[in-house]
This record gives sequence, structure tokens and C-alpha cells, in this order.
Amino acid sequence: MNVLSFGKEDVMKMERRFRLRLINTLSGFKSVNLVGTVDSAGNENLAIISSVIHLGSDPALMGFISRPAFVERNTFFNIKETSSFTFNHINEAIYKKAHQTSARYPKEISEFDQVGLTPIYKDNFKAPFVKESPVQIGLIFREKVDIKLNDTILIIGEIQSIYVPEHSLHSDGFLDIEKAGSITCSGLDSYHLTNQIARLSYAKPNKELIEI
Amino acid sequence: MNVLSFGKEDVMKMERRFRLRLINTLSGFKSVNLVGTVDSAGNENLAIISSVIHLGSDPALMGFISRPAFVERNTFFNIKETSSFTFNHINEAIYKKAHQTSARYPKEISEFDQVGLTPIYKDNFKAPFVKESPVQIGLIFREKVDIKLNDTILIIGEIQSIYVPEHSLHSDGFLDIEKAGSITCSGLDSYHLTNQIARLSYAKPNKELIEI
Repeated sequence: MNVLSFGKEDVMKMERRFRLRLINTLSGFKSVNLVGTVDSAGNENLAIISSVIHLGSDPALMGFISRPAFVERNTFFNIKETSSFTFNHINEAIYKKAHQTSARYPKEISEFDQVGLTPIYKDNFKAPFVKESPVQIGLIFREKVDIKLNDTILIIGEIQSIYVPEHSLHSDGFLDIEKAGSITCSGLDSYHLTNQIARLSYAKPNKELIEI
Repeated sequence: MNVLSFGKEDVMKMERRFRLRLINTLSGFKSVNLVGTVDSAGNENLAIISSVIHLGSDPALMGFISRPAFVERNTFFNIKETSSFTFNHINEAIYKKAHQTSARYPKEISEFDQVGLTPIYKDNFKAPFVKESPVQIGLIFREKVDIKLNDTILIIGEIQSIYVPEHSLHSDGFLDIEKAGSITCSGLDSYHLTNQIARLSYAKPNKELIEI
């Protein structure tokens, strides 16, 4: 197998969109979620993001990275207004609609309407969930962490509510998101189904792993 | 389909390991990488992480989340000493060895030796790459961002070198990591192959998406 190598100088000299596509693939497969928000006047927003990360389970914290250009649009504006947002997994049935939310619609336009997804409000939570999504999470805004190196921000929320398919939740707490239908993405535009190889036992020195 | 719902109170009352397993699955499928480091005395360390994120392409920045317990062990100690670390994708051939690096070995023990992976040094870069890995990235430490909410840190590096299989790199810059053999993970212990659905065109308002 022939290996290509690129040094820092090569990367800096790459054509801008070539570099954007390549660097975006290097982190590996990514989570892909729809972020649902609403402003205080009731204008809804829906945005696809591939940077959601787990931050901790006690308290239950999740975050996502936002670029300034994205922030200036609507998601973070709405989060600041209502302190609420939702993460919604994407399945094969809705991935094209989800991708279409990345188009630059004016603020007064709801991406829900434009792409044909359904906002749904549950249990008095302020932000809308995506009805078609297999796994839905409601979060309260907790902190914005500035990443000054490149003017991005990490937006952190604490989990307030979780909606998952009963058939996907194992008795030990493991949620089988593959069985739930959640997909993954790579780079800026590539969507992928998954096929589980195995779950592995907790690793200890000098102890053989088993499939669980 | 029956949907289970959990509120914040339910989450807080969950048995600790049940909650850990459930909350860890909620972000969606995750990148899974081996982080290679070395201290100034030449002691190597290798650790599996599922929190690598893309932060920007100009400059080319990537980061990962680290827990204090993990930091106290070896990875971040080594990064501070040598300012260098590597990310190495995982494929089906090495995923069990990769998982085994999460066992708590003493500092003087090299996980490379223990699990049977090969450290390789390239182009005078200080930190070791994983020879068996299909996609390898060398990074220089740039910044530690504290997440005070739960005492975690975001460790950020700038890409110095990239090694990828030639047959996986498209002419537009998209690296087909599925073709390269990279896998994804979910939760604490579940590993998955992928199966590409499609790449989609850049989304614009009122323009139909096409598969590219």
C-alpha cells in the first residue's frame, strides 16, 4: 500500500477547499446531530453539527464546537436567549433533510419547515426536538468555553431529558444506537451506516479481553 | 416503537455504571484513535481515546478531552514534556489491541509492548506513531483549555504531519477513511465498521442535493 505524507508546509500550501475537506476527515468518524433551538419570540432553528462530544456522566454534560460564523447565525443566539437546546440523532430516513439544514437560510426562516422535519415540544422543555429522530436529548446551557487559538467556542449543556427506543437499551445501560438507527459521518459531507464488530470487556493488565 | 424517557432526576438516581454507559452513548458514534506519546527519558505511552475533534483547518487544529485521572497517568505528562503527540486511526485488525491500552499499566510500562503494537518514528517527529494504523497524524501541543464545570481539559494540537493511504485520498481532498479501514466506536466498549450511504453536495437554499 502506497502511503502519502504531508508536512505542515504542504498543508499550508494546499488549495483552501482541498485542505478543508482533508483536515475535516482526520479526526475519524464523527457524531452527527441536529441541534434544535428557539428564540424568545418562538422562531425555531435547526442545524446539523458533527462536533458533539461527551464530557462527563456525573453531572451529565455534553458539548459542541461552534465557529464564529455559525454563532452569528442563529443557534448560539437562541441558546443564549432561552438557555435550552436539543441534540437529535440522524438516521438513514432523514439524513438528506438533515444535511439540507446547513444551507444559509435567513433568520426568520425555520429550517424545520424548509427541509420537512417536524418540531415537537415535550415535558415543558423550551427547545424543540426533532420528531423523526431516533434519539433525542434536551440540554440546559451551562457554559461557553472560548478557544482563542482560532476563535471557536465550546458550548456545554447539562442533560435534562433523554428519549430513546426501548428495544435499543440494554439492561447494563448501553444504548445500542446502531439498532436505534443512528448513523455517523465523515468529513463535511459523507454519511455512513454502521455494522457492529463487538463490545469488549473492561480492560485490565494481563487479563484477556472477551466479547460481551 | 416504544420510547423510554428519562428526566434529570432519573439520570441522577441511576446506578453509577449504568449512567456511565448510557450517557457515553448519547453523543452518537465517536472517533476512536490511539494517542502516542513519549517522555523526555524515552518512555513511550499509548492510549485509546474517543474524544478527538476537528477544530479548524487553517490553522489545522485538532483536540481531545482528557479527564484528570487520565492526565495524572501519562499522556498529558508526556505531552507537556515533549510538546508532541500523535493520533492514529484504528482498524478491525488492531481494535482489540487498541482497547487493551485502556488497562491501567504502571508508567514505566509501554502499552505498545503490552498489547503488541509497533512504535515507529518518522521525519524527526518526537512522538511515536502506531505502525499498524491506517491514518497517522503528528501534532505539536498548542493549548490546554480548562473546562471547570467538571475538571476536564481540552488538549489542542496543530497538525505537523499526515500519513494516509494513497488509494483513499480523492482528488478534491476528501479522505475516504472507510476505504482506509478506519472504524468507529460507541459508548465505552462497542466497535463498528461503517458502510457509506453517500456523499452529498454543498447545501444551498432552494437547491436540490445531489450525491457526489
